[in-house]
Amino acid sequence: MTTDTARLSLADVVAQHARSRPGELAIGDGDLRLSWLDFDRRVERCAAALSAAGVSVGDRVLWLGQNSFRVQELLVACARLGAGFCPANWRQSAAEIAFVVDDLSPTVVFTQEQEVGDTVDAGLALADHRAAIIVPHDDPDGGYGAWLARAPATEAPRTGASDAAVLFVYTAAFGGRPNAAMLSNRAILAQAVLMAPWMGVHAGHRYLNAGPLFHVGVFMENFATLVAGGANVFVRRSDGEDLCRTVETFRCTSGYIVGPMVDAVVAANTGGRFDLSSLRGKRGHPDYDTWVGVDDSPWGRSPGGYGQTETMGMQTFNLLADRDAIGTHGRPSPLVQVRVVDPDDREVAAGEIGEIVVRGTTVMNGYWNRPELNAERARGGWHHTNDLGRYEADGTFTFVGPRTRMLKSAAENIYPIEVENALRSHPAVADAAVIGVPDDTWVQSVKAIVVVAADAHASAEELIEHCRGRIAGYKKPRTVEFVDALPRVGFAVDYDALDATFGGGNYPGGTTRST
Amino acid sequence: MTTDTARLSLADVVAQHARSRPGELAIGDGDLRLSWLDFDRRVERCAAALSAAGVSVGDRVLWLGQNSFRVQELLVACARLGAGFCPANWRQSAAEIAFVVDDLSPTVVFTQEQEVGDTVDAGLALADHRAAIIVPHDDPDGGYGAWLARAPATEAPRTGASDAAVLFVYTAAFGGRPNAAMLSNRAILAQAVLMAPWMGVHAGHRYLNAGPLFHVGVFMENFATLVAGGANVFVRRSDGEDLCRTVETFRCTSGYIVGPMVDAVVAANTGGRFDLSSLRGKRGHPDYDTWVGVDDSPWGRSPGGYGQTETMGMQTFNLLADRDAIGTHGRPSPLVQVRVVDPDDREVAAGEIGEIVVRGTTVMNGYWNRPELNAERARGGWHHTNDLGRYEADGTFTFVGPRTRMLKSAAENIYPIEVENALRSHPAVADAAVIGVPDDTWVQSVKAIVVVAADAHASAEELIEHCRGRIAGYKKPRTVEFVDALPRVGFAVDYDALDATFGGGNYPGGTTRST
Repeated sequence: MTTDTARLSLADVVAQHARSRPGELAIGDGDLRLSWLDFDRRVERCAAALSAAGVSVGDRVLWLGQNSFRVQELLVACARLGAGFCPANWRQSAAEIAFVVDDLSPTVVFTQEQEVGDTVDAGLALADHRAAIIVPHDDPDGGYGAWLARAPATEAPRTGASDAAVLFVYTAAFGGRPNAAMLSNRAILAQAVLMAPWMGVHAGHRYLNAGPLFHVGVFMENFATLVAGGANVFVRRSDGEDLCRTVETFRCTSGYIVGPMVDAVVAANTGGRFDLSSLRGKRGHPDYDTWVGVDDSPWGRSPGGYGQTETMGMQTFNLLADRDAIGTHGRPSPLVQVRVVDPDDREVAAGEIGEIVVRGTTVMNGYWNRPELNAERARGGWHHTNDLGRYEADGTFTFVGPRTRMLKSAAENIYPIEVENALRSHPAVADAAVIGVPDDTWVQSVKAIVVVAADAHASAEELIEHCRGRIAGYKKPRTVEFVDALPRVGFAVDYDALDATFGGGNYPGGTTRST
Repeated sequence: MTTDTARLSLADVVAQHARSRPGELAIGDGDLRLSWLDFDRRVERCAAALSAAGVSVGDRVLWLGQNSFRVQELLVACARLGAGFCPANWRQSAAEIAFVVDDLSPTVVFTQEQEVGDTVDAGLALADHRAAIIVPHDDPDGGYGAWLARAPATEAPRTGASDAAVLFVYTAAFGGRPNAAMLSNRAILAQAVLMAPWMGVHAGHRYLNAGPLFHVGVFMENFATLVAGGANVFVRRSDGEDLCRTVETFRCTSGYIVGPMVDAVVAANTGGRFDLSSLRGKRGHPDYDTWVGVDDSPWGRSPGGYGQTETMGMQTFNLLADRDAIGTHGRPSPLVQVRVVDPDDREVAAGEIGEIVVRGTTVMNGYWNRPELNAERARGGWHHTNDLGRYEADGTFTFVGPRTRMLKSAAENIYPIEVENALRSHPAVADAAVIGVPDDTWVQSVKAIVVVAADAHASAEELIEHCRGRIAGYKKPRTVEFVDALPRVGFAVDYDALDATFGGGNYPGGTTRST
């Protein structure tokens, strides 16, 4: 008999809402409406079915489909059992899906026939790992409903601890392969409790889960809505007409509707034929903004900050700083400590750039199945973000950019992104990268490789002079090469190719300490 | 080397504010003003001094004085070390203080000469336990300042885990002696993060710690202010003129000013000679309310709920229910589950009364030095509150009263407080208690012992009839005895004496399952 009186999992939150708000709406999806009591009972059946399939503490369940209320149901059922649930990226190739299947080695896999079925099936065929059960969730006959109906009538175990990893999200493909960040009930619920009032999320809130559920950014408001006892509403994918109809049907008060999804809503809502007036959160689009109201919550007025999947989203919040703050990314959440450190893990002074390291309630349990990477990234008890940041004199925070590798000029550390940002601020520069070339006196000297904008001109001397006023003297390029385009691997600059072409080398600690 | 990347203690929160808000006010006390950077450095010295005195993980530090910023400083320093800090009730007798000293067996004790010195010294003399160091904190020569100045220059350990018990508060004197509830960093910080936005507490907040710091009620807003980066301001005790002057000096935005403290402020502020206009939170006193502003935060509009020291204050919040709710105590916090159970720990249906049991993030680590009591109170993984409550049909919650003991009528459970509340609702009843007398058929029958109000009259029949419409028939008294006064031990009715006088007995499971 456990005596863990401090335990709180996602399943416990749902069980409590079933007592406190039994008849209020918890879940909406198409024609489906579940009250908190309905949802709690379904979670109970779902946990019993997973348990019967062999899912126990520490096991994994994989979702290879698009958005559905079943994602929420399976996640909460896994929380109850102490298992992990991974909603994988359904935009991946068959080979990428096969990697996830083999890496995660799930006990149960849910697939989807509609739209992604062929790729998912090919991925499963490519993988070596064989799950105990594969459920094609949208099969009208043998799918999710039938699977749930077969669940045994016995009560499912309640073995999920607060610190148990429950949400697995693949991210951080530093070494060319992604790693699954393991987020605990503790991290998820703490972030949700923190953000709900800042987002103006209360029991009457209805959040449209319109972005893909393999992103923590979509889950942040989902979890805030969950803890507040509001309703989470789902659409399978970001189809404009489907979004509009769902907002109208459920009177959604907010939604993850950004970028091209705004355009899709505008295209679908010609003549304002759907009633979107329940929504809050204008998006800077003239049509869209006539249909929706203003979000005057603190987050609505000052959204964003610096965050990572590995910390259940935000580590710093813009809303924690005034408009006249020096830093561009607010201040850290009260749930974490954020330090900026040099390569020897010593905290640097305000005004200096270093790697961002973090510890606290919202930090992940580590990456699944990556003991060596975890030891490296969690060294000294701090999660090393692989990102660069800076505290300003007023205590506010600036996220500088991803930490790729470091250059050395005598004793001084130089991060390429700092120099590149200075170069890019010149109007004639379209793109820029910085490498270190061996230097007998200074260890390395800084070389810039620059793409000049069409119809623009800039000399090496002019660009070096431009940098002089913007960054410390030792950081400015000593030499500049001009190219038509930078070599890239995917979106990332291929620094190895630049080194090979332009004589880079002598990097401190090899090329980088990250993996 | 620890890899606890999830760690967050009170000391970590202070260290983070020293980065994010270095120059902003953290502490005010008399002429003393400490910025977050100042405060963090003092905590560092304080932790080094405690460590040098032998305080390590799991050890205790006792404060036998009135309010002071040093309470906050020692508490945070203990959090850093992983030790526990107890601010004891300075209104206690010497014998009561001696009990606390022996029970807590602290490594370091802080005493106060002013006002309480004689009693504290007598208590220490009575106790068997001898602390390693006793520091008379307000001694101008050999006191706290001198003690801190002697701290070694070495860095103090940072060994405080999130789950470490850091605040010890004596409460729950069920068995005639008080028990120290051990509250962890986790419980304190989660409650503070939850409550800060509800209380409208932000970085500009300045909270006057005017109530005694041996009560969790005073600490709730203190901790909310701490996590938000606001300032905690201290007065030694609730002296009216001192309160007014401190509010004016520090422009306090709120304060623990309740009951007779409001009258003391009114008496001290004749002619409105102090500027109290920074304060928010009217108190229903005509003069007071002309000086202070309205608190329009959710908590200000709907304060309170049901809580306990053992759960870092509130378990339910009135602000989570509408005005037309059936229940009188809102809904549970998202940080806990609250169940209402029968004596066999089975959850009862809405509308039924049972014992309130709770589990979740804000629940204490148990009582210090009470293994048997802890096993009993935490049975099945739920903290048993010894209080009675009820869920209503709309999911809202009602706190009924303390669970003293239970009566039995055939298979039905009867809690005396239910019957006593029904009796007290009769205008002629000044006081009432209910006992069970052995009954061959029904196990027990209900007997009421009633004190009639001065100049009032009521017959036994009339009172029984009064109860009939208010509680279930099996709960109403079968017999009524009239007395001039109820026997009491302290504030509590002496049920044992009533049983002896009026033939009580046959209680299920002895008299009570609580200790």
